[in-house]
Amino acid sequence: MKKIKKISEDYIINKFLRKLNFNKIESFNFNDDAAFLKISKNKQLIVTNDTILESVDFFKDDPPESIANKIITYNLSDISSMGSTPYAYTLSLCLPKNITDIWLKKFTKKLLYLQNKYNFFLVGGDLSKSNKIIISSNFFGFVPKGKILNRSGAKINDDIWVTGNIGESSIGLLLKKNKIKINKIDKNYFINKYLYPLHSSFGEKIYNHASSAIDISDGFYGDLQNIIKNKNIGASLKSKLIPFSYKAKKLIRNKIIDIDYLLTSGDDYELIFTANPKKSSLIEKLSTKNNIKITKVGKIIRKKGIFLNNRQIKVISKSFQHFS
Amino acid sequence: MKKIKKISEDYIINKFLRKLNFNKIESFNFNDDAAFLKISKNKQLIVTNDTILESVDFFKDDPPESIANKIITYNLSDISSMGSTPYAYTLSLCLPKNITDIWLKKFTKKLLYLQNKYNFFLVGGDLSKSNKIIISSNFFGFVPKGKILNRSGAKINDDIWVTGNIGESSIGLLLKKNKIKINKIDKNYFINKYLYPLHSSFGEKIYNHASSAIDISDGFYGDLQNIIKNKNIGASLKSKLIPFSYKAKKLIRNKIIDIDYLLTSGDDYELIFTANPKKSSLIEKLSTKNNIKITKVGKIIRKKGIFLNNRQIKVISKSFQHFS
Repeated sequence: MKKIKKISEDYIINKFLRKLNFNKIESFNFNDDAAFLKISKNKQLIVTNDTILESVDFFKDDPPESIANKIITYNLSDISSMGSTPYAYTLSLCLPKNITDIWLKKFTKKLLYLQNKYNFFLVGGDLSKSNKIIISSNFFGFVPKGKILNRSGAKINDDIWVTGNIGESSIGLLLKKNKIKINKIDKNYFINKYLYPLHSSFGEKIYNHASSAIDISDGFYGDLQNIIKNKNIGASLKSKLIPFSYKAKKLIRNKIIDIDYLLTSGDDYELIFTANPKKSSLIEKLSTKNNIKITKVGKIIRKKGIFLNNRQIKVISKSFQHFS
Repeated sequence: MKKIKKISEDYIINKFLRKLNFNKIESFNFNDDAAFLKISKNKQLIVTNDTILESVDFFKDDPPESIANKIITYNLSDISSMGSTPYAYTLSLCLPKNITDIWLKKFTKKLLYLQNKYNFFLVGGDLSKSNKIIISSNFFGFVPKGKILNRSGAKINDDIWVTGNIGESSIGLLLKKNKIKINKIDKNYFINKYLYPLHSSFGEKIYNHASSAIDISDGFYGDLQNIIKNKNIGASLKSKLIPFSYKAKKLIRNKIIDIDYLLTSGDDYELIFTANPKKSSLIEKLSTKNNIKITKVGKIIRKKGIFLNNRQIKVISKSFQHFS
């Protein structure tokens, strides 16, 4: 029954994880059966849940920093799309028994970096051994009472906005799989976008002004579809307005990649949101103030469906993993 | 790119999971990026996290109802040991692609049964495909402000109490592995205790009266150890006071099993708690009122260590998975 392992679970907790609780009383320093969350009467608590798996969401040999980046970004993106500010998270780590000290060090260093950057802490969790790396996390965030932003509020004539650039990470994935060939500098740029996606934190700035929001995790069209579905509204887009990076435009021009691919695939973790046109200048001011790129790409219209340059787009609904 | 699967993720959500949200607005009917939790200014929110894995916490061919029972019981046990009442949970399901309709039906039927029994709902979650079944869950519970019960409050001369009977599930595990042989009726009884453990809900009744509490998930000694560790106190126990079922006593008498095994192994999901002797009759009344068996098994003493009939016990600390 005696288990002596080079890297025991106690060792992982004491050496790598404990510092992530930022000494917050809520975590009971990981010594108790559960933790608690400080709640405030003027705020609503948002909760979201994401799981990433080796061979599905990342590759076995991806840098540990990239894996840490993904579990945090996937969750923060959901937190922000609801208009909320991150507060704390739980972490369930299923790790192979041959996991190394150096892997754990890199993984937790990235967690710590992101925790400091976005100001949230680890409240508790769970460790298990498994053949493959599987990481599940619950994130908690706060939004002022009555201000939850969600997918369902878009109205006819609202502007459709998007943050950042579209399709960067999906180009990185193609390059990682050697499906396309480009110069080394651009290749590194896109692979980096795939390995280290960052969520758009604009959601937490606009909960008072946007009518709906969703983060892009299933491709631009797929997530735009979720904003108009089950309602008698549609979306009219102009292709020339859709924000692609300078490097992506070069690939489009050289016919290495097409726009349809960029708009249907991948994990951008940018935000699509809608807002009344009256809010336009206010939203632009928030964009400038927070140094977050935003682009108006179209309008919510009375006709059902998604239209690009007045031509209807067939959106093939992808299966989705996420049910909150 | 077209994915047509017999059992798609949408199908699982619509057919099996959606009903588990009890139509609570908090879940946004699983249509949004995240969910929210209603919070109350007079209550504290408790959060806990547990993951169970095929081949580790259950066997591949265990009944789906047993697997559902385990993920719920492991978490409810933590919620109750903090003095709190369950409220909601998230569920991250990693399932093999050949999972069947009947498996999902049995699994979710048991979830629904336990949700109705203990009054909590599914607020959201995540679905992924994996080779083995892995289930991770976060549970949320409430406790009146300032009343969180935890491991660290035991004082010298406090009574040590335990709920239910000790070691039942660990006998079931031995039988499931064919390590011991007994008659069929008793065998079924113990295997049932292993497959369908239930948490003790006494914690939520005694948050006002107990000085400390912990649920038994690493064996009676191991968890008692967590109540006295890092403090200048110990525990004095009387073996004849420790509650074993009639069937377990028979096995002890016939030397098929020994007391040490029962006190060091297994997942009982009963509660160890301590309380000032003045609280004794009040606690007994709560036990009668709620029809929960409790037993006074010893005292907190000034001398460090655990003593059974005045003889010191060496507790070999097991590695633990849980850090909140």
